[in-house]
Amino acid sequence: MDTPSTTSTPADPHSHTLVLHHLEQSRSQRVLWLLEEMGLPYELKTYARQRGNRLAPPELKAVHPLGKSPVLVHGSEVVAESAAILEYLAETFADRAQGDLSQLVPAPGTPEHRRCRFWLHYAEGSLMPWLLMKLVFQMLPRQPMPFFVRPLVQPIVHYICQQVQFKLIDPNLQRALPFIEQELAQRPWFAGEHLSLADFQMSYPIEAALTRLAGSPNSASKKWPHLHAWLERVHARAAYQRALAKGGPVMW
Amino acid sequence: MDTPSTTSTPADPHSHTLVLHHLEQSRSQRVLWLLEEMGLPYELKTYARQRGNRLAPPELKAVHPLGKSPVLVHGSEVVAESAAILEYLAETFADRAQGDLSQLVPAPGTPEHRRCRFWLHYAEGSLMPWLLMKLVFQMLPRQPMPFFVRPLVQPIVHYICQQVQFKLIDPNLQRALPFIEQELAQRPWFAGEHLSLADFQMSYPIEAALTRLAGSPNSASKKWPHLHAWLERVHARAAYQRALAKGGPVMW
Repeated sequence: MDTPSTTSTPADPHSHTLVLHHLEQSRSQRVLWLLEEMGLPYELKTYARQRGNRLAPPELKAVHPLGKSPVLVHGSEVVAESAAILEYLAETFADRAQGDLSQLVPAPGTPEHRRCRFWLHYAEGSLMPWLLMKLVFQMLPRQPMPFFVRPLVQPIVHYICQQVQFKLIDPNLQRALPFIEQELAQRPWFAGEHLSLADFQMSYPIEAALTRLAGSPNSASKKWPHLHAWLERVHARAAYQRALAKGGPVMW
Repeated sequence: MDTPSTTSTPADPHSHTLVLHHLEQSRSQRVLWLLEEMGLPYELKTYARQRGNRLAPPELKAVHPLGKSPVLVHGSEVVAESAAILEYLAETFADRAQGDLSQLVPAPGTPEHRRCRFWLHYAEGSLMPWLLMKLVFQMLPRQPMPFFVRPLVQPIVHYICQQVQFKLIDPNLQRALPFIEQELAQRPWFAGEHLSLADFQMSYPIEAALTRLAGSPNSASKKWPHLHAWLERVHARAAYQRALAKGGPVMW
């Protein structure tokens, strides 16, 4: 969100410090990866998840009223939502999108641009909600409950949670993963021949899907070979590895 | 999704027919609203939700592998994801964004542009997942179950679903609605002084939130007066009313 500002982007965006408010093991890892790819100087503020419920800590509310991460602060700009942050960085520091990154935002009006835009929205608008819901229904039967009701209640909760996954969540994920696999069978990166913002935005849900749905890396590479190969290409990038060293592991 | 095409947008976009694949009582209502605002000719294909589970019907899989709505077909382009469709229409038919719609896509680099981008992502990336999850946990205890276990199981399921709402879902929504209210207290439309794509994209989750969380229109106008006033402004637009007449009611 950039409500405090009433002016346009400053003439020299490099004159302000970039601060990334980063929640460990979260979506913000992909912003860290882009910052590293673009070689931008930035300050990293890392927040630990709360023990027990693993939610974001209350300190993040001081940064943005929604209390979420990632949030990028750049001078008077406070930018929230992963995709909006990625687009903000690519737009504001277009001078850093060179070489390997020259197609970070593909030319408007091209299929690459439309594909990039689709994945930017699809990642959090369609894929993540089902992955999040899967996680909630997987964890629900494992919640602590009083020992005297557990033998009776736990099987019931377990059964109901399985039914919701079976009838509602899994059919959606079972359409999503083969669809993505088929798209990546046609081109090395999400938008086309070159790395684009779409790859950064998709990296978190793909990491989540391959970690939580495939069972093991071996099984992932068999089920979705192109998806697995794409993730290997991402992991092999030096900037990704620097981001990992600074931000910590992506999944929990 | 625009994988079938390998060419750029045609020189005369008006030479192709626009077809909107519209699921009743769904997100696609906002695309219909934009088509009406822009005065574009289009063909509307309406799909009924399945009885019982209220999911999208299998016919939609023939339109797009994800089997979802909205999907916009324009010549060889098959565009999915609400926000990507809105952006596609604004970009392809920029000549129709005049008068009241001249700020449909605010000028890049301005606070209006950044706000528009934020809400385009926030609507489905952050707000809708919690609204959808709320709906799932509200409906779960009402699912049919065998009569001989119902007296025992239903109260347990009801209690657990309430706990999930109380601990996980409601805290998120209780931060979201006041945040949106505060933003709309500062300006009449989501991006600023003028209607933009952000208003179209936000219209569905706001409609859902005010219908399902407020209890009644009276209560909504007291709790979130600016949000309620914004929705009244949307409902008062002639194009919105035409879309409603063609696509049917937004909520169920």
